[in-house]
Amino acid sequence: MDKKNYKYRDASPDPRVALKVGKPPGTLIYTGAKKEKTPVISAIQFKEDKVFEFAANTIEEIKTQLQPELVTWINIDGINDPKMLNDVGKEFQLENLSLEDIMNTESRPKFEEFDSYIFVILKDMHCPNDGIFDMEQISLVLKENLLITFQEEPGDVFDGVRARIRAGTSKIRTRGVDYLAYALMDAIIDNYIIITETFDHYLDDLEDLLYATTHRRQLTKIKEAKKHYNTLKRVVHPMKDVVYNIYRTEHKLITKRTHIYTRDLYDHVTSIDDTILQSRDKVYGLMGIYQSGTNNIMNNIMKTLTIVSAIFMALSLIAGIYGMNFKHMPELESPYGYYVTLGIMFVVALGLIIYFRFKKWL
Amino acid sequence: MDKKNYKYRDASPDPRVALKVGKPPGTLIYTGAKKEKTPVISAIQFKEDKVFEFAANTIEEIKTQLQPELVTWINIDGINDPKMLNDVGKEFQLENLSLEDIMNTESRPKFEEFDSYIFVILKDMHCPNDGIFDMEQISLVLKENLLITFQEEPGDVFDGVRARIRAGTSKIRTRGVDYLAYALMDAIIDNYIIITETFDHYLDDLEDLLYATTHRRQLTKIKEAKKHYNTLKRVVHPMKDVVYNIYRTEHKLITKRTHIYTRDLYDHVTSIDDTILQSRDKVYGLMGIYQSGTNNIMNNIMKTLTIVSAIFMALSLIAGIYGMNFKHMPELESPYGYYVTLGIMFVVALGLIIYFRFKKWL
Amino acid sequence: MDKKNYKYRDASPDPRVALKVGKPPGTLIYTGAKKEKTPVISAIQFKEDKVFEFAANTIEEIKTQLQPELVTWINIDGINDPKMLNDVGKEFQLENLSLEDIMNTESRPKFEEFDSYIFVILKDMHCPNDGIFDMEQISLVLKENLLITFQEEPGDVFDGVRARIRAGTSKIRTRGVDYLAYALMDAIIDNYIIITETFDHYLDDLEDLLYATTHRRQLTKIKEAKKHYNTLKRVVHPMKDVVYNIYRTEHKLITKRTHIYTRDLYDHVTSIDDTILQSRDKVYGLMGIYQSGTNNIMNNIMKTLTIVSAIFMALSLIAGIYGMNFKHMPELESPYGYYVTLGIMFVVALGLIIYFRFKKWL
Amino acid sequence: MDKKNYKYRDASPDPRVALKVGKPPGTLIYTGAKKEKTPVISAIQFKEDKVFEFAANTIEEIKTQLQPELVTWINIDGINDPKMLNDVGKEFQLENLSLEDIMNTESRPKFEEFDSYIFVILKDMHCPNDGIFDMEQISLVLKENLLITFQEEPGDVFDGVRARIRAGTSKIRTRGVDYLAYALMDAIIDNYIIITETFDHYLDDLEDLLYATTHRRQLTKIKEAKKHYNTLKRVVHPMKDVVYNIYRTEHKLITKRTHIYTRDLYDHVTSIDDTILQSRDKVYGLMGIYQSGTNNIMNNIMKTLTIVSAIFMALSLIAGIYGMNFKHMPELESPYGYYVTLGIMFVVALGLIIYFRFKKWL
Amino acid sequence: MDKKNYKYRDASPDPRVALKVGKPPGTLIYTGAKKEKTPVISAIQFKEDKVFEFAANTIEEIKTQLQPELVTWINIDGINDPKMLNDVGKEFQLENLSLEDIMNTESRPKFEEFDSYIFVILKDMHCPNDGIFDMEQISLVLKENLLITFQEEPGDVFDGVRARIRAGTSKIRTRGVDYLAYALMDAIIDNYIIITETFDHYLDDLEDLLYATTHRRQLTKIKEAKKHYNTLKRVVHPMKDVVYNIYRTEHKLITKRTHIYTRDLYDHVTSIDDTILQSRDKVYGLMGIYQSGTNNIMNNIMKTLTIVSAIFMALSLIAGIYGMNFKHMPELESPYGYYVTLGIMFVVALGLIIYFRFKKWL
Repeated sequence: MDKKNYKYRDASPDPRVALKVGKPPGTLIYTGAKKEKTPVISAIQFKEDKVFEFAANTIEEIKTQLQPELVTWINIDGINDPKMLNDVGKEFQLENLSLEDIMNTESRPKFEEFDSYIFVILKDMHCPNDGIFDMEQISLVLKENLLITFQEEPGDVFDGVRARIRAGTSKIRTRGVDYLAYALMDAIIDNYIIITETFDHYLDDLEDLLYATTHRRQLTKIKEAKKHYNTLKRVVHPMKDVVYNIYRTEHKLITKRTHIYTRDLYDHVTSIDDTILQSRDKVYGLMGIYQSGTNNIMNNIMKTLTIVSAIFMALSLIAGIYGMNFKHMPELESPYGYYVTLGIMFVVALGLIIYFRFKKWL
Repeated sequence: MDKKNYKYRDASPDPRVALKVGKPPGTLIYTGAKKEKTPVISAIQFKEDKVFEFAANTIEEIKTQLQPELVTWINIDGINDPKMLNDVGKEFQLENLSLEDIMNTESRPKFEEFDSYIFVILKDMHCPNDGIFDMEQISLVLKENLLITFQEEPGDVFDGVRARIRAGTSKIRTRGVDYLAYALMDAIIDNYIIITETFDHYLDDLEDLLYATTHRRQLTKIKEAKKHYNTLKRVVHPMKDVVYNIYRTEHKLITKRTHIYTRDLYDHVTSIDDTILQSRDKVYGLMGIYQSGTNNIMNNIMKTLTIVSAIFMALSLIAGIYGMNFKHMPELESPYGYYVTLGIMFVVALGLIIYFRFKKWL
Repeated sequence: MDKKNYKYRDASPDPRVALKVGKPPGTLIYTGAKKEKTPVISAIQFKEDKVFEFAANTIEEIKTQLQPELVTWINIDGINDPKMLNDVGKEFQLENLSLEDIMNTESRPKFEEFDSYIFVILKDMHCPNDGIFDMEQISLVLKENLLITFQEEPGDVFDGVRARIRAGTSKIRTRGVDYLAYALMDAIIDNYIIITETFDHYLDDLEDLLYATTHRRQLTKIKEAKKHYNTLKRVVHPMKDVVYNIYRTEHKLITKRTHIYTRDLYDHVTSIDDTILQSRDKVYGLMGIYQSGTNNIMNNIMKTLTIVSAIFMALSLIAGIYGMNFKHMPELESPYGYYVTLGIMFVVALGLIIYFRFKKWL
Repeated sequence: MDKKNYKYRDASPDPRVALKVGKPPGTLIYTGAKKEKTPVISAIQFKEDKVFEFAANTIEEIKTQLQPELVTWINIDGINDPKMLNDVGKEFQLENLSLEDIMNTESRPKFEEFDSYIFVILKDMHCPNDGIFDMEQISLVLKENLLITFQEEPGDVFDGVRARIRAGTSKIRTRGVDYLAYALMDAIIDNYIIITETFDHYLDDLEDLLYATTHRRQLTKIKEAKKHYNTLKRVVHPMKDVVYNIYRTEHKLITKRTHIYTRDLYDHVTSIDDTILQSRDKVYGLMGIYQSGTNNIMNNIMKTLTIVSAIFMALSLIAGIYGMNFKHMPELESPYGYYVTLGIMFVVALGLIIYFRFKKWL
Repeated sequence: MDKKNYKYRDASPDPRVALKVGKPPGTLIYTGAKKEKTPVISAIQFKEDKVFEFAANTIEEIKTQLQPELVTWINIDGINDPKMLNDVGKEFQLENLSLEDIMNTESRPKFEEFDSYIFVILKDMHCPNDGIFDMEQISLVLKENLLITFQEEPGDVFDGVRARIRAGTSKIRTRGVDYLAYALMDAIIDNYIIITETFDHYLDDLEDLLYATTHRRQLTKIKEAKKHYNTLKRVVHPMKDVVYNIYRTEHKLITKRTHIYTRDLYDHVTSIDDTILQSRDKVYGLMGIYQSGTNNIMNNIMKTLTIVSAIFMALSLIAGIYGMNFKHMPELESPYGYYVTLGIMFVVALGLIIYFRFKKWL
């Protein structure tokens, strides 16, 4: 690529975005990294005193086994199959637009109320070993006594909740489906607390590093920190709106008993947002710290130059003086003149070094 | 031009602005780049099971062929003919102000409700090969069972929708005229997703370039990026308001069924706005990256100067010492003195180079 | 003035402000640059099919000639005569505070509703040849079928509207007095479009100038740009509020028919505000561009210094070596030694120049 | 103080704040600079056609002389006597919290409505000769037909109003007690117009000074400007809220006739706030101007160094060449060689000076 | 730790956060620094004319001694015992979520209304001798005639209120339980006034220090100031919301008589917030002051270098000239040439020093 004539038209956007653009609205296109695997549909049904679990490949199979009087949670792992989603949509009377949002992994977090269901999109964030944020889109459809969740891949974020349902010791079994939805969202949002706090601590460490040493290589770290900050901000910011709407909604599907829990959810997401705001100040202060380091290095270089120049110029002047060709220069005749001069040079050099050390330049 | 005495009064605004200013309100003046061609009026009428298309040069010709019971979309390519627009206005009872806005290509995006119609101005943005944003003003008039659209030139942004109407496979044929209007606006806004994402990626590349190399020529790129950012912001910002108003309106012409689609539209435009906000931070950080590069260059120059000075001054001092005219300097008498001295010089130079390399200055 | 001990108490505010402060509220004091001339009162009365115009020095003279059934526009040029204003106030039942605001040329733009009239203050801005903003306060009093306007001096901003009334071709004659008020305000605001756009273009040119060359003299331009930006902002910002209030008011004097025009007015003033916001970013970026220029100059100076030092030090070392007094230095004996040495010096100098050119320092 | 280990815990807050903290709420403690003098209570009673004035040391003395049917203004100079304030509070049924606020000179400006009175705290600001802001707390209690004002010391801010009451020429005598309260607040706020405008002009002068010359001493001025800006902002900001609440209140004690005056008050305080916002931009731009000056100085130093080095190095090289000990150097033999060489040196030095002047470095 | 490859995933968040994350909501986990001590429950009951105090280790013990008709304040020191908290919750019908918040010392300050109680979390801040902020979470549960407070450790913030209850001289004994809650919150918030004012004064001192001297060591102080600012902001910001909600609530447990005190509370917290905002500007200006100091040092170094170079180069040139080997150089023959030359050198050096002093470089 010829960097000189590089134009922004040469920059290409995320191909997943391009995939979606220009299609008629409501078209079901899976924009995630395509995986060949078949989606797995699993269901958990529970009441205070019983739990049933079963899995299947089609929604019909699930349908036949459901017992109507229990709280039902259907989880769908894998959202790359338009046909299956269509079936789900038809079976549970979901709007086409909702199905489209479920498949489009580039959707923003959103909260939408319909007459018969509440639709929520959240992003689950992990931070695996390679230090790059990994995001998965989680969609929740809350209906009367039924919760349907959609995941891109069989994730572990829901495992804790599943274990609690099975164990039956926590209060989750005694509450309705809206509390279940809350518990799942709480699990997702708890993840963000870890991630944002960790990121904020990382920025503290990066600041320390920049205060301690300055190297051009560290610019890469600053660049990356900015990028990660942007990623975090773009996910958390709309999520705050979503949770606020969940807290504010008066939809009949959210019982008053669960409502006080959503207030807690909102508290958490507000706290996350605070952390991110704080990170912002840090991220945008990094360059300043780096530059103060660069200036410091410059000052040290200049000091070195000045010291070197002062010492050598002084000694050279002495040598220059005794290199003059005057007929009458008594020192030149003396047998010790040379040694005395070398001695004087040594004393001058030493004196200058002491002087600069005294001035704290060395 | 004498740059020294250049005053802002010498800067002239866009002549298209000047053209419009000072005229009585409601005057129909076409402010776009005047094209000599005659406007082309085309109409599409459809129902679930039929589509009719026809074109003409005057609105009367169109009028005579319309079948009242069908959904009607009249598209007018070319808005430089005041007389034709006047006819359209009279035929469909449009306010004079709306006609003025249609012709004035400098209008801001706007949404206006009237008793009998909804009036929307949007900007369609392309990014052709020469890398300069190209904008076209699109006006939509939504009436009972009738949509009139105005374009500056026969564009391709509506072609996708037209194709879908003809094909009859998508749901567009089964919905009313408000859904048609939504589909067209969706096509326009989808374009922005591409453009803003591309621009944001371009900024990432530009950041990388600035981190990697620093050259005064890159200031031009920074300047251009700022300019493009400004153009984008000025178009998208009011567009967000427009779409918000479309989403919020309770005008009878927007059915409840289409309303949930406008929510989607608003989500898209919000996401576009997020991208632009992110671009802003990047654009305004470019100068800082450039300057850190400049500082770095400065440090390298100073290091070079210091190294050069230290080495040559040290060697010159040695030469100066043996240039002194003392009677008694034993080294001078030695037959190898000269060679030994040259050798010492070489060793000193080498030592200094090793020293500076050790200090990572080289 | 001794700059060292200069305190802000030595800075004196605008004498026109001082004139007003501490006086009892409602005192009529003309704070503009006092002109000795007598105010001129002129009236235009019109209906769809007739226009009457007449002028006078007192409001009574005017009063006697008015025909009650026509739309009446009384324009008062010159507001430095408290007695005359008092007469006007008494004649048309204006509040004392309104009269005070009319005379106080330091008033902020404002919109006030009273039971029997609407009171608006706007600032008309010109940008004459000497490149300094010139501002004039325009007050409008809108009453039933009567508009009174107050100008500081016989301006040309209303001339266009006057011509349109006389010509009778535009729709202004067919509408009421509220449309007339709108037309006048539109004329004033159109002026701002020109001025803000021109100023923004000027800033673009200034940016280009700063990117191209850096000179301390340009700081004056930056300083002036800031000042002009401040002036513009302080006028336009409250004007936006005023126009918004005009658009929002439900006062009976503004008919529904005119209301849709005020929406247009608001669109214009919003667009002006956008331009100013954009100018802000430019104004505050100027210093950064200037400083990047300064840094660039610094780098070039340092490069020059390094190149000069490297070349001369190298050549001096060679000369120094052959200035040593060793007994045994074979080169010194050679008859061509001197010329060869000069040649070597030339080659070394050339080599360094080529080296620095290769490193793009030259 | 050992600066190195200085911690913020060593910084002590204003002792007046410490005085107040930790006391039970409602405790009457005078936090101002304690003065030994006895408070002076004075009263003015007036009607359209009469004025009575009298003073006393206790509220009882005043009480006995009051004539119930007149508009009454009681002014209390000196608020350091809790007993007296308690008497006032009991006499006029004031809340304990209000009394506490009156005595606590660190109170924020506030507006509080009670059933039977309106309570306002404002700060009166002077700028005496030593150039340091001097602030005095003014409290107003507006009751039915009675206004009580509290001042820290016998100030002159109310003198103008007092004079107008005595003179009886202005409309103040014909209006009620709420207009009197307005007139007093107007007097206080008018002071701010002067102070903020003066401060803003001072900043302009300071900018000019920084553009013209750069000296480390000027950092003190920048520091002081910031401090003064902070003081101003902290007082004016809450005052805007107070005045807005006065304008918005529907308390029965504010008549509709006075209400339109409070709108004027709000206009003034908004304009003051605008000036302060503008000052903010200036204050925070000062450092940038200073630094551009520092950079400019640096460039000039570097230019000097480069010029000095270039000239001396060039001449030294010439001298070095003719200091070489080659046997065969024809120039050395010439009787004019020395003079010619000196001449060449002179020409080279002159040439370099001309060259650098040509490059505008000199 | 290899700094080069350090990734943010290596940064670990506060272990107390990690402790809480992923647990089912409502789980009682104490996240504070675990202390082994048993919680101490103490109760104060009072009426206008009597006070009873008693302490115990279990809530049952307390319960038995309570006299129902008195105002009751139960204070619980130590919140690390889930069982005890569970008992309290059951005894007084508290929601599980509230109990969880009480134990989770990482909770944000919050205000929550329930049908039968009001729940408030505040942070009490101390600034002990080692200059590091120390925070303690205080929870208040306000019920009918009963206040329960939870502290992490037996603190002194409530001691003043306790003393006032015992003394019976202040009005606290005559008011209800809501006034008691107000008094406690007032005590907490008063602490913040001291802390924020002290911090702001510390920043002033730090600014002065930076203006006076520049040393890389001071970067640590800047870093710490930022950190402390962040801590303060994160606590005070949500506290402002809490107090605003307390002021705005219409819950029946807050009597109208106490309501006017909460307005005062809000005034205090607003003033604290103002101080923090002001601190923000100072904190973010520190780096600029530091850098202007660095630039100043750079200028001084460059001046030194230039002076040193100019003097030595000039003297060396003179020595070089008389080191030339021209046959005919009359000065060399003179017996005083050497001394005269040394004299000239001395004069030149002196002259340059005077010149640079005159230019204020020395």
